[in-house]
Formats: sequence, C-alpha cells, structure tokens
Amino acid sequence: MSPPAPERIPVSGPPFESEAWVGPGLLADAARYLRSPSGRFVLAGARSAAAALDPIRRSLGGRILADVEVDDAESAKTLSSVEKIADAAIAAGLRRDDALVAVGGGVATDMAGFAAAILLRGVAWNAVPTTTAGMADAAIGGKTGVNHPLGKNLLGAFHPPASIVVDPAALSTLSDRDYRAGLVEAYKAAWIADSTLAAKAQVAMPAILAREVPPLLALLAGAIRIKAAIAGADPKESGRRRLLNFGHTLGHALEAASGFGGLKHGEAVAWGIVAAVTVSRRKAGLSDRDAASVLSALSALGPFPEPVRDRRRLEPFLARDKKASSRGLASILLERIGVARVDETVTPDEWLDAAAIMSVS
Amino acid sequence: MSPPAPERIPVSGPPFESEAWVGPGLLADAARYLRSPSGRFVLAGARSAAAALDPIRRSLGGRILADVEVDDAESAKTLSSVEKIADAAIAAGLRRDDALVAVGGGVATDMAGFAAAILLRGVAWNAVPTTTAGMADAAIGGKTGVNHPLGKNLLGAFHPPASIVVDPAALSTLSDRDYRAGLVEAYKAAWIADSTLAAKAQVAMPAILAREVPPLLALLAGAIRIKAAIAGADPKESGRRRLLNFGHTLGHALEAASGFGGLKHGEAVAWGIVAAVTVSRRKAGLSDRDAASVLSALSALGPFPEPVRDRRRLEPFLARDKKASSRGLASILLERIGVARVDETVTPDEWLDAAAIMSVS
Repeated sequence: MSPPAPERIPVSGPPFESEAWVGPGLLADAARYLRSPSGRFVLAGARSAAAALDPIRRSLGGRILADVEVDDAESAKTLSSVEKIADAAIAAGLRRDDALVAVGGGVATDMAGFAAAILLRGVAWNAVPTTTAGMADAAIGGKTGVNHPLGKNLLGAFHPPASIVVDPAALSTLSDRDYRAGLVEAYKAAWIADSTLAAKAQVAMPAILAREVPPLLALLAGAIRIKAAIAGADPKESGRRRLLNFGHTLGHALEAASGFGGLKHGEAVAWGIVAAVTVSRRKAGLSDRDAASVLSALSALGPFPEPVRDRRRLEPFLARDKKASSRGLASILLERIGVARVDETVTPDEWLDAAAIMSVS
Repeated sequence: MSPPAPERIPVSGPPFESEAWVGPGLLADAARYLRSPSGRFVLAGARSAAAALDPIRRSLGGRILADVEVDDAESAKTLSSVEKIADAAIAAGLRRDDALVAVGGGVATDMAGFAAAILLRGVAWNAVPTTTAGMADAAIGGKTGVNHPLGKNLLGAFHPPASIVVDPAALSTLSDRDYRAGLVEAYKAAWIADSTLAAKAQVAMPAILAREVPPLLALLAGAIRIKAAIAGADPKESGRRRLLNFGHTLGHALEAASGFGGLKHGEAVAWGIVAAVTVSRRKAGLSDRDAASVLSALSALGPFPEPVRDRRRLEPFLARDKKASSRGLASILLERIGVARVDETVTPDEWLDAAAIMSVS
C-alpha cells in the first residue's frame, strides 16, 4: 500500500460536481483545496477540531466571513443547532455565491452541510472531516441532516459538498476508541465492493492501528473511491447505494437501543456486521473462509462494548428503520468479500436471532 | 378566452417531474389528481382553507396518515412552524414513499413544501393553492422555505410539488383584497412573456374581477404555463428565471419596509412594477403605449395602500436583496409587453428615485 499524496478523487453525479482530496499536509494549504464561487467562506468548526481549524484559519485569512462554533455531540445534532449556524451566516451577510466549511466529526459535517442546503435555498459547502468515520463515510455522498426525538437523521437533505479535504493531521487529537470505531466503515466499504483493497487492508491492519500514514490513507482513499462510485450512481438511495448500509440494519437498532452514547456508530455497525455475517452464511452463501476473515478484522479493531441483545428492546427500532418502505426491510447480505446484495426477505426475527448469538473473539 | 377544464400542464425539469391541473370541480375528485408513491398522505392545511380541505378529506378518506393545521400568517412562516409539520408527519409514521398535501395560501404551501423537502431527506408533496397568488405563482417552480428575522425566505429548498391542483372553488372564502393582489402576479407573468395572453387578460379584466371562472382560469393557466416554462428551464434561478422577479427588486423592499402586514406581497409587487415601468421607459425602450397599458391594468386591480417612499427606510432592504450576488443587483426591465430582460446596471439610487414618484391613477 503506497501513499497517495495528494490524491484527487472525483465524487461526481449530476446535478453536483464534488471532489475529495486525500493527502498529508493539505490543511496548511486549505485555500487551494476548499471551494467557494465568491472566494468567501463561513467556517463552522467543532470545538474539538482545533488541530484542523488553526491551519485552515491561517490559510483562508481575511476570506472568512464568520467563524461559528458547532457542538459536535450526537445529542446536539438538532434543527436548532443548524439554525444557530444559519443565523450566524445570515448575520455575516452570506450571499448565494459564498460557501460554508464544516470542520469536525460526522455530527459537525452533517449539520453544517444541512445548514448549507437550506441557506438561501442552497449554498456550496466543503467538508473537512476530523475523524476516521467522517473521512471514510459521513462526508461523502451528500447526505446531511439532524436527529429527531423519534429517530436519527429524520430531517435532512441530499446536498453534496463541493470539496472534501482528508488530511491525517486532522486526526491528531482523536481518541483511540474513535479512531478504531471509524475504521469499521472503511473496512466495510472494502468488504462490500473491493476484495483487493480488503486483502491489502487486512495485511496492513497492525500498521493502520499504529496510525502509519501511508497505509491509513490508502485504506481511506479506497473507501472514498468505493462510496463515491456507488453513491454517485445512485444519489437518492433507491438502488445500489443501499449496499453501503451493510451492517446498518441491525447496527442502527443496536445504536438506538444503547441510548446514543453507549455504542459509537462504528461499534454498532461492527456488531451489525457480525450479525450480517451469520445471516449471509445462511442466506447468501458466504464461505467460512470469508466469514472468518471479516470477523478476524473486526476482532483486531475491537474489543467493542457489549451491545443490547434483548429482542424486546431491539425490535421497536428495527421496525422503525428509516430505510423501510411499504415493502419491508432492505437488508444487505455479503455473498463473498467484495460482493454484496440487497435482500428484502430477511425478517426482523432473523436479525434478532442473529443478534442473540453475536460474538467477536 | 375559453375555459380549460380540466387542463393538465406539465411542469417538468429534471430531476423532478411535476404537473399542474387547472379546472373547476377538481377538489371533489382530489384522489385522482394528488400523487403519492404509497397512496398515503399527510395533510397540512391552513385554518382558512376549509372550503378546499373538506372535499379533499372526503376524497382521500382513510389514506390520510395525519391531518395537521398550519398557521397561514406571514409572521408564522418560521422554521419552528415547519418543525411542527415535520413532527406530526414523523409521529404518524411517515415513510419515504408517502407524500404531503399542502392546502392554503403561499405561506402554507411554502412551509409544507419545505417540510417535505427535509423530511427523511425529501418526500413527495402536492400543492393545493387557495389564493390567486398561490395559483399564479407560489406553488409553481419548486421554491419552498421560511422567513428569518433578517429577511424573507432566507431558509428553504428547491423542491417542486409532484402535483399542483388549481380549482376556483378553493377561492370561495378569499377576500376581495387578496383576490386582486394575487392577480398582480398572474398579469406580471403575461407582461414578461406573452403579449397575446396580456392583451386577452386586459380585455377580460372586468369579468376576471367579477370572479367569472372561464376567463380567470384562462389567465391562471396561462401564468402557470409561463412560469413552468421559465422555471423548468432554469430550476436553480441562475438565468432566465430571474425574469419572474419583474417588480420584485423594489417590491420586496417596499414589502419589508411596510413591516410585513402593511402591504400584501402582490400589492408591493404592483408598486414595484409601477417603478419598473419608469425605469424600463428610460433604460429599456418601453413604449408609452405599453407603459400605459400596464399602468391601466394595475389601476383596475387597485387601489393599493400607500407604500413607504422614504429612501432612508427603503435603502437597507434594497442592499440586502437575496438575489444580489457579489456582482450587484439583478433588476428586471420590460422592453415591450411580452419581452423582459435582466439588467445589472440599475443602481439602488435609480430604484429609489423611481419609488419617489410612483403613482397609479
């Protein structure tokens, strides 16, 4: 795995043109990679993202119209937090050709991207993820939004960022637990779509866990390329894009049942993938060898906190899955490493059976 | 002018497919004209819209998931009112393939359309305008949104309704003042794009003011066709769509300076058109004859309440025009009836000079 530095990944799909930049040292030169039709920016940064914010502030200098602090906690991911960002942008005189820059974890990029989607009926924005989860997943594909008391991400918009800047320097203050949880999404991308990347990332696991930059960036760039290809071909999530939800059907229920804050999103997805491996062996012909390979990688990324396994506590959240249409649950199963498919025959009961016996050793 | 009954007007433009239905008696058969992928609807209706809501409720029957009351006052056009609609839809178990139906004036359709835009990152919606303003303008073209303390419509989304149902029965409780103010937008559409429609609607003015259905529907259908053609070719308002803002550059400032509630939107636009006629005579070669024809129609639609003319009170609102880019104000001038153009050379001072001498006799 050789270092891609800096690598430009087009994240296209009409009616938007997006690009991701991946490489070390990009933040110091942020003005070159962040896009704004007018050249002016509203900065929306999480408190915890100082390591990324400081070089961006230096690089953009007087082109910053407003500098808003965003609360990066899942509990603050609300419409009123988005309104706070919008208020600051409007008070600063935001025009249609100005752009936002979101700096932080998935909560910050989801909220600032949603603010950009609704300000003046849509202005451009840029994402600077400061977590492995954000780099691998949250900022790519155009999903923005906030939570609702009745469920996660129930309010939002599809509004892709013009540019996504991925610089490993932004991870410097990320906890080991968050670093590992976020990587689950990167490995997931490889498992559903790229057996070569999955094999390389499996071998490089010790180096990646030691935060070595070249293999980390190779995995992240690979995950971004996969997500860009899948989401770009299906921006409104009606078909193949659902493959990206591998591990998420049960994962979302585990996360919700743990009360948001118990399990990190990536940790819940990891448990969801463990259950999906069980179901995939039975219903999609996943081989023992491939199943063992996925479980061994999850074991290296863990250990993860114990999830809720009680069916009565999990079931209501499975039934209320946002992806459910009138037809039923859309489950993602793995046929072999690199090949996933949508399956609408898996019942909530089958997921709950699999949840009861999940284990990673 | 013969009655189009019922007439289907395609309001296309990717990535959305919309249609408008215009005719008497459509509401009694609403289930046939309102669209929902699942067949289920959330009804969001203004209190004042009972005349339209009752037949819709009877027609949709058990397919109504929730029935939400929307406050149709300009002062209630806020993000928290949108949140109220969204809360009710989510609590009722809204799914991605369900749809909203907005019934009311421009405030109700703007807010319910915006709720549809952000619910589950976008569900389908239908517009049933109950004012002449809504029938001629507000529901067509996909603009949805709410006001902000610092200006009108500063938060919103482009999210066209799947279907727009225009039935004159919905106007039965509309005041004469609102009926006339709303027609300003319909005549405006004719003036910027269709000299034949403008001439016919001029002749039919007494019948239209007497609420005779055939000439009224002919004017409304003509205005919808014009707006659909212009907005469909330019969904994000970067080019020709700005022509629809004829009378709005100064009109928005007059409306804002009157404190929202002083002048109706259509009345402010009427005054804005009077000023635009002055500027168009000087800078766009508008003939005396065409100028007199426009002013005579506005005179028949009036009288309108006296506007603010004080430059110091108007100027801040002109400077803050949402349509302003870094380049300057985009003003719409009339070359002759049926032909308008965008002009970026008109200064705020020229608008304020024209405002000082506006008169309709």
